[in-house]
Amino acid sequence: MEAFEGAVQRNAVNFSGSGQTFLSSFRSDLKETLLPDDPFRHLKGQPAGAVTVGLLRYFVPILEWAPSYSFAKFKYDLLAGVTIASLAIPQGISYARLANLPPVIGLYSSFVPPLVYALFGSSTSLAVGTVAGASLFLASIIGSVASATEDPQLYSNLFFTAAFCTGVIEAALGILRLGILVDFLSRSTITGFMAGTACIVILQQLKGFLGLLHSTHRTDVVSTSQSLFTQTNQVNFSVHPISEDKTKELLHHLRLKLFWLPVIAPLIVVVVGCVFAYLVHAEDHGIHIVGPLKKGLNPISISDLNFQSKYLSTVLNASLMAAFLALSEGIAVGRSLGILKNEQTDGNKEMIAFGLMNILGSFFSCYLTTGPFSRSAVNYHAGCKTQMSNVIMAICMMLVLLFLAPVFEYTPLVALSAIITIAMIGLIDYEEAYRLFKVDKYDFCICMSAFLGVVFFSMTIGLLVSVMLSILRALLYVARPTSCKLGNIAGTELYRDVMLYPNSKLLSETLIIELGSPIYFAAAGYLKERILRWVEEEENIANKDEHLKHVILDMGGVTAIDNTGIGMLFDVHRNLQKKEIKISLVNPRPGVVEKLISSRYIEIIGGEERVFLSIKEAIALSHFS
Amino acid sequence: MEAFEGAVQRNAVNFSGSGQTFLSSFRSDLKETLLPDDPFRHLKGQPAGAVTVGLLRYFVPILEWAPSYSFAKFKYDLLAGVTIASLAIPQGISYARLANLPPVIGLYSSFVPPLVYALFGSSTSLAVGTVAGASLFLASIIGSVASATEDPQLYSNLFFTAAFCTGVIEAALGILRLGILVDFLSRSTITGFMAGTACIVILQQLKGFLGLLHSTHRTDVVSTSQSLFTQTNQVNFSVHPISEDKTKELLHHLRLKLFWLPVIAPLIVVVVGCVFAYLVHAEDHGIHIVGPLKKGLNPISISDLNFQSKYLSTVLNASLMAAFLALSEGIAVGRSLGILKNEQTDGNKEMIAFGLMNILGSFFSCYLTTGPFSRSAVNYHAGCKTQMSNVIMAICMMLVLLFLAPVFEYTPLVALSAIITIAMIGLIDYEEAYRLFKVDKYDFCICMSAFLGVVFFSMTIGLLVSVMLSILRALLYVARPTSCKLGNIAGTELYRDVMLYPNSKLLSETLIIELGSPIYFAAAGYLKERILRWVEEEENIANKDEHLKHVILDMGGVTAIDNTGIGMLFDVHRNLQKKEIKISLVNPRPGVVEKLISSRYIEIIGGEERVFLSIKEAIALSHFS
Repeated sequence: MEAFEGAVQRNAVNFSGSGQTFLSSFRSDLKETLLPDDPFRHLKGQPAGAVTVGLLRYFVPILEWAPSYSFAKFKYDLLAGVTIASLAIPQGISYARLANLPPVIGLYSSFVPPLVYALFGSSTSLAVGTVAGASLFLASIIGSVASATEDPQLYSNLFFTAAFCTGVIEAALGILRLGILVDFLSRSTITGFMAGTACIVILQQLKGFLGLLHSTHRTDVVSTSQSLFTQTNQVNFSVHPISEDKTKELLHHLRLKLFWLPVIAPLIVVVVGCVFAYLVHAEDHGIHIVGPLKKGLNPISISDLNFQSKYLSTVLNASLMAAFLALSEGIAVGRSLGILKNEQTDGNKEMIAFGLMNILGSFFSCYLTTGPFSRSAVNYHAGCKTQMSNVIMAICMMLVLLFLAPVFEYTPLVALSAIITIAMIGLIDYEEAYRLFKVDKYDFCICMSAFLGVVFFSMTIGLLVSVMLSILRALLYVARPTSCKLGNIAGTELYRDVMLYPNSKLLSETLIIELGSPIYFAAAGYLKERILRWVEEEENIANKDEHLKHVILDMGGVTAIDNTGIGMLFDVHRNLQKKEIKISLVNPRPGVVEKLISSRYIEIIGGEERVFLSIKEAIALSHFS
Repeated sequence: MEAFEGAVQRNAVNFSGSGQTFLSSFRSDLKETLLPDDPFRHLKGQPAGAVTVGLLRYFVPILEWAPSYSFAKFKYDLLAGVTIASLAIPQGISYARLANLPPVIGLYSSFVPPLVYALFGSSTSLAVGTVAGASLFLASIIGSVASATEDPQLYSNLFFTAAFCTGVIEAALGILRLGILVDFLSRSTITGFMAGTACIVILQQLKGFLGLLHSTHRTDVVSTSQSLFTQTNQVNFSVHPISEDKTKELLHHLRLKLFWLPVIAPLIVVVVGCVFAYLVHAEDHGIHIVGPLKKGLNPISISDLNFQSKYLSTVLNASLMAAFLALSEGIAVGRSLGILKNEQTDGNKEMIAFGLMNILGSFFSCYLTTGPFSRSAVNYHAGCKTQMSNVIMAICMMLVLLFLAPVFEYTPLVALSAIITIAMIGLIDYEEAYRLFKVDKYDFCICMSAFLGVVFFSMTIGLLVSVMLSILRALLYVARPTSCKLGNIAGTELYRDVMLYPNSKLLSETLIIELGSPIYFAAAGYLKERILRWVEEEENIANKDEHLKHVILDMGGVTAIDNTGIGMLFDVHRNLQKKEIKISLVNPRPGVVEKLISSRYIEIIGGEERVFLSIKEAIALSHFS
């Protein structure tokens, strides 16, 4: 053993972390939690003027890209803008119908918000528009206090109010940099939620199809639109927000020669449907059409916002959930496409842009908008270079609103049902569900609870139950941190879990335990019992000559400890002290060391000499200290 | 580099974990979560008969200790039992008054429940009785639907019903082995909650003192009791459940020669007060006394249980919170004293015992009981050997109820106020609060929120806010797992955080990142940005000759990953692939490896050759594979 001592060099453990004041460590923690992307890192050390310009450019990104804007870029943006406008018209009308709103509001919603986003948004690929999920969700909640058929004015006004409130919530979350909250909608939750929503919508649309079956020209129209839409199925109007696999797949499809056909198919369907309906006087034959679409730009609706107390709680409730849904989709889309373009997207700044676009939108008869997956992916592939493509789309919509709106009056409802149904089928990602089942059963449960909750109860219940399950899993993780007994892997200096590497060698007289993280209140009792049981087992196994003399706690993985956790370590020490077993700590992290010093734990176990940088050192040197 | 290759031995990474089925891994996870103490480990491999006996002994511990019970042990238990009975009488009367219940119910509650606990309880030191915190808490909630003065019968009946419901909840939690839920009341929450409760109670008791100040014999009585109680202050009738420091300190005090004086002081005060009140006809001089105490054992109250729907929700609400409060105190006390005696306490089994004792207690006019800290500590020190001391206490209470009850009729209320106040002062653990402030500011906030919530709002609000803050901290931990960039510490094979060890050497062309745990949905976006930012920084720093070619992810600390987390790793891979940077994984844990294989991540980064057992191997070998 003496010979050993010479061979092992004692490396200084850094206790410097303990000099950090609470304020500075709190500030750095806060920064890491709320500003993980450190958006101002390039401004460090710059002169004040440059910082001001940098900050302004940060908050109003158009100042950054507009000055260097060129005709070369414009060509691309023009093409992309027209393309997404061709998608925006049928989608706008369809989703407005899904929300039981007058179809023209769907068109309005693709005019003002994209302009606002072009000013404040930072994603160069995101295309603004309404989404199916949030439309249906708002309809289900607002429909409970106002009737779309009996009092359509009140109903629309509540939608504008909800858009306003959603905007305020989004902007507030962004300003407070609480983007972290959106992180709590997991991919599994969204997969399940979207699929559930899609099922409900499809069942609803069946009414549209069935209604038509009793009319004369049914088969033709149905079969026409269906055959047309079979092609559009490839475009997969998915609003699935995070799946990048899907983006890739979709983009792959889009790169095919047939690119334009599926993208403009919905518009073609609508146009063909209109012409057909106009020619055969569809309405007389029982084919329902969209009906009057007033020419003209968005009417101002700021005075229509309704904050009456009897509706307010419902509207706020709807807005809060809608804000999370819309943000989780918009931000994930921005991030996913940003990664493809190798741009970093600042989620919190995007939230502010979404917030402003919904607030201003609500003043001009627009309802909730975000960055839908389908439209943004098309925008990206059509080659958009800057946010200008949103401006082009807005201009197209303006032209439609000013001159072409009446044309779309003849759109047969069944065509819209078909557009919606096809879009919805793309949302049912059964492959992802199957993958979840294979890879992670708990995630599969989270996904299914969202799906079943939405289908059998309500959208709110599905979402809440699923989020609760996700949070429960996180809490269980904290309550049961994985700890293990380590053994030496023969011929190396590595120490690994003895359960996993059964051939690893245990040491005599010494027990090495790797503690899981975090050591929080919920885990303290558990960890104490776990450690003491290992000690007990070790004592039972050991020969009479070889008493357990030394417990080494590998703290390398422990990134956080709280008061109850420290109390647990004291309890363990007290227990081992009675059995004359010494404790050594290996590689504790700065924040943890700090607390162990200020609570006098290090002092009680024998001072800094009992803290080591590696297990090897702890084994070789601890017997002598 | 070639020379290097020979020097480094490649150690086999164990992928065997991936052979585990979902069911077996789920079962072992479930066992670790719900049965962390593995109570049946000694029954493994035993014959069926022995297992049956073992199980029976496990669930009815009296079968284990009664057969070997001896007179030698009985002597100790007798002494301890009489001692705790002397504490139980004044405490019982006091706490019943705190709950606005007839004082005799406090005495009843120290008769039946201890007998039940002696049958089913497993802690040899725990003494059963009522507690101040829960008494006050129940009074505040039940008092909101029933008046103690206007309808005392209903009021008491609701208390019995609450005891019944609490018992059912406790037993259910125990049977379902959900002891983990109690872990969510952290030590800081309880410190703050107890102190807040104590403040309210003391303010309430001031009424008692002030009421007396207007009467004749005031100064004498007040000063007498106060001077008497100054001594009892040392006993510190704390119900602080977890603090073992306190146990030790208290036990140290108790070991002093004056041991008996402070322990029986409350009884002396009551007896002296009674004699004094009887002699001077206190009631005539405006000194309020307890009043009629009926002789006789507990009346049966099973038919008094009130499950009317108009009270039920209040009662259930109160019961649920009371169950958590009572369990967290009782189990922590049992565990703490168990550690001193070197016994393991099974929290879930204790819950069943507590549940049965409250259910049966509610049939015999008892209200909520648990294992109070003060009484149990006295029991421990008085030398109790088995649960028999509870039986002795119950017998003493029976004798009091049968023959001596009327004696205590003359107890002056002010004496009870004094007993309560002194006990409450012991609950205000300002030293712990100061220590929290020094060691962990967040824990201090949790503690203060409980304290201020209880003092300024209500006990429920204080408790809920504080628990929410604790949970929030746990969630933040999960949302922002600590990750760091590693560097080589000169002259060793150790790789440590470069922020903490600034002299550690970074490698050219290779970036080593230690990932924090868990990689869950809430952290996925954050981790992706963190990793990509490090890569970006590295690329900016690197010379033009030395491109970053290799990212090593040290997964040793990652104990859990979910679907969103795996998606994040795919995103990172896709990003790095474009820059022709390879990824290696070091030391992933079995559960994680399994998911990485089934999701085909390992395959995509280049197969098992890219998974290493140590960083050293990953550096030396990864360029060649």
